[in-house]
Amino acid sequence: MNQQELVKGLQRRAESKIILLILDGLGGLPIEPGGPTALEAAATPNLDRLAQEGSTGLSVPILPGITPGSGPAHLALFGYDPLVFRVGRGVLEAAGVGLPVAKGSVAARGNFCSLDPQGRITDRRAGRLTSEQASPLVQRLAALRVEGCEVLIRHVRDYRFAFMIRGPGLGAAVSDTDPQQEGAPPLAAAAQAPGSERTASLVNDWIGQAAMALSDQPVANGLTLRGFSTDPDLPQFSDSYGLTAACVAVYPMYRGVSRLVGMDVIEFAGERPEDEFAAVGAHWASHDFFFIHVKATDSRGEDGDFAGKAAAIEMVDRALPGLLDLKPEVLAVTGDHSTPARLRTHSWHPVPFLLWAPETVRQDGSPGFGETSCLRGGLGTFQAVNVMPLLLAHAQRLDKFGA
Amino acid sequence: MNQQELVKGLQRRAESKIILLILDGLGGLPIEPGGPTALEAAATPNLDRLAQEGSTGLSVPILPGITPGSGPAHLALFGYDPLVFRVGRGVLEAAGVGLPVAKGSVAARGNFCSLDPQGRITDRRAGRLTSEQASPLVQRLAALRVEGCEVLIRHVRDYRFAFMIRGPGLGAAVSDTDPQQEGAPPLAAAAQAPGSERTASLVNDWIGQAAMALSDQPVANGLTLRGFSTDPDLPQFSDSYGLTAACVAVYPMYRGVSRLVGMDVIEFAGERPEDEFAAVGAHWASHDFFFIHVKATDSRGEDGDFAGKAAAIEMVDRALPGLLDLKPEVLAVTGDHSTPARLRTHSWHPVPFLLWAPETVRQDGSPGFGETSCLRGGLGTFQAVNVMPLLLAHAQRLDKFGA
Repeated sequence: MNQQELVKGLQRRAESKIILLILDGLGGLPIEPGGPTALEAAATPNLDRLAQEGSTGLSVPILPGITPGSGPAHLALFGYDPLVFRVGRGVLEAAGVGLPVAKGSVAARGNFCSLDPQGRITDRRAGRLTSEQASPLVQRLAALRVEGCEVLIRHVRDYRFAFMIRGPGLGAAVSDTDPQQEGAPPLAAAAQAPGSERTASLVNDWIGQAAMALSDQPVANGLTLRGFSTDPDLPQFSDSYGLTAACVAVYPMYRGVSRLVGMDVIEFAGERPEDEFAAVGAHWASHDFFFIHVKATDSRGEDGDFAGKAAAIEMVDRALPGLLDLKPEVLAVTGDHSTPARLRTHSWHPVPFLLWAPETVRQDGSPGFGETSCLRGGLGTFQAVNVMPLLLAHAQRLDKFGA
Repeated sequence: MNQQELVKGLQRRAESKIILLILDGLGGLPIEPGGPTALEAAATPNLDRLAQEGSTGLSVPILPGITPGSGPAHLALFGYDPLVFRVGRGVLEAAGVGLPVAKGSVAARGNFCSLDPQGRITDRRAGRLTSEQASPLVQRLAALRVEGCEVLIRHVRDYRFAFMIRGPGLGAAVSDTDPQQEGAPPLAAAAQAPGSERTASLVNDWIGQAAMALSDQPVANGLTLRGFSTDPDLPQFSDSYGLTAACVAVYPMYRGVSRLVGMDVIEFAGERPEDEFAAVGAHWASHDFFFIHVKATDSRGEDGDFAGKAAAIEMVDRALPGLLDLKPEVLAVTGDHSTPARLRTHSWHPVPFLLWAPETVRQDGSPGFGETSCLRGGLGTFQAVNVMPLLLAHAQRLDKFGA
């Protein structure tokens, strides 16, 4: 019996509310050796108080040394072993924009790109095409048809769109058309396993039509597709945990992974932490689990902007009282992975984790919320896939195992 | 998907160099309760500085409470789950002296022993026969022949030799002839599974010839064979990690396990740490991973020589600047297991681990390098099989997992 089966069998009904607040890429490194991390440098009186009242630790997203993408990192936080449950990039993108991911549909992530007269890619992101510029081009693509199957196209953001083909007898073992470098032409889609030949052929047919539809464009005159994948058929949150779960996230990919595990994706206006927290408040009565995703921490880390990352954390901290006013039984604050500004990319370093649950938490004397203090925290260093059982336990939503 | 498959798929090319410095049996216990361990008692200014600049933790060789032999302990450090990959003692011994371990060959470890007139063992190590004494006897054994197969004999050290038989239709399920006690005669080799009957018979034939060849010897007039085993067919370092790896070790067994995972085993003169570090320097350009093995720490531990163990650690510490001058991107210092002088044998206690990687490590405020400080280190207590992913990550040689 694995953790998932164990937890599923221990569900207990309760009225308690759980909030899982993810600051994307929260973990970091000092920008100068010996100095504080961005989280430690940030002024976070609210988070520090929660740490003092709660318990802290460090979360290992996948395995020691393994740097995760956002998809597997979030799956782990949601309790799904990402080495068992593999979710393709195409499916994440498609689910994020609300395309109906289901058995029999194959999704891919699409990028507009720039091609030279010889058909070679000169810019893999078409000059970082804006959403306004991309929108009419997406409409052109959405009008194309292939034989015997339906193709659905939806804009994601900027130069990105989601591609989905659905119909009988499709397979997702189709190779990327993105050559992953400039100076090379897009590749033809190819079947990588029996049963996907027709899908590859239909995809190539569609790409040919798309090339004509974009041929009058000065910048976005080409496209690439990658991450062909199909419904991973993930166990649903309600079934696994007995939770009515909601996702409050701005970015499509996080909405996508939430939708795949059966969360309701909440629509709301604004992009600031206080806008997200207000959205939680607006749906407080109807749900008992809220996943909130803040992107700016990761973005500033990837920019190499140490001060900006600290500022993004401070913005969350300032808005926190609005969330606490809702009086959740359990509030966890962590990241899906580390994104040290010094490395300008995701990393493998364990992620600070804060668990606040006034009724049930074992206080550990944490002085505040930071990498160094979390290292000494009462939760120790544990795997991200253990987070959900911890949250459920502290919400008194799990029965005991065995007599 | 397991860790090995995961890591293999994430290989990233880089110019970075990794050194894994193993002080055999490094972990210890205080010789008197409440006192320091040998590592803590040793004056180690260089190791302490590396710990202060890096991150530390404790490595569990196999599982809590499990004391490993050197073979499985090293396999774990090299990233091979020793509960999955079983390497026989015979194969380790044979590979260590350069016998060609391959499918179809069966190897065993051989010991010269002393027999009384009734054929009972009076000394399992033939009075700790010296290499000079053993060498001509090994030549006699190497001249013996069996029907239809080739037997290869090579001297290891002192009273030990490697035995290998190769040819068609052999099996490695052959029982030890060493009765593991004095006062009993050597046992006949016996097949322990179908397919090994002929092998056992050929081994017994060879043993009979060997008994005659040694019958004129006053001390080393007998022999035992144990650890019959065949090629474990281990994944190779280059394939698993994209590393060109080198082994710098004096003792055959460590050279053997390195050869089995595809490392180049470097020849060099001398046995001191500085000799080993000089050998690393001499091959610095041609390899990107160096496994260095220091035996004295374990030997002094097994002798019950607490001060000697501390002195062996100090010898390594004094030589360390020569290694650091090479400017590795990643240097890890640890042991394969603990060998407390107080216990005079290998033990299960977690092993101090030091990770130094100026560009990528998350400093943890370790005050120095010792069991007690490692217990509070930023790497926590982790499994030895996680070491390779950690080293690769800190060398920026792993791509991220998933999108």
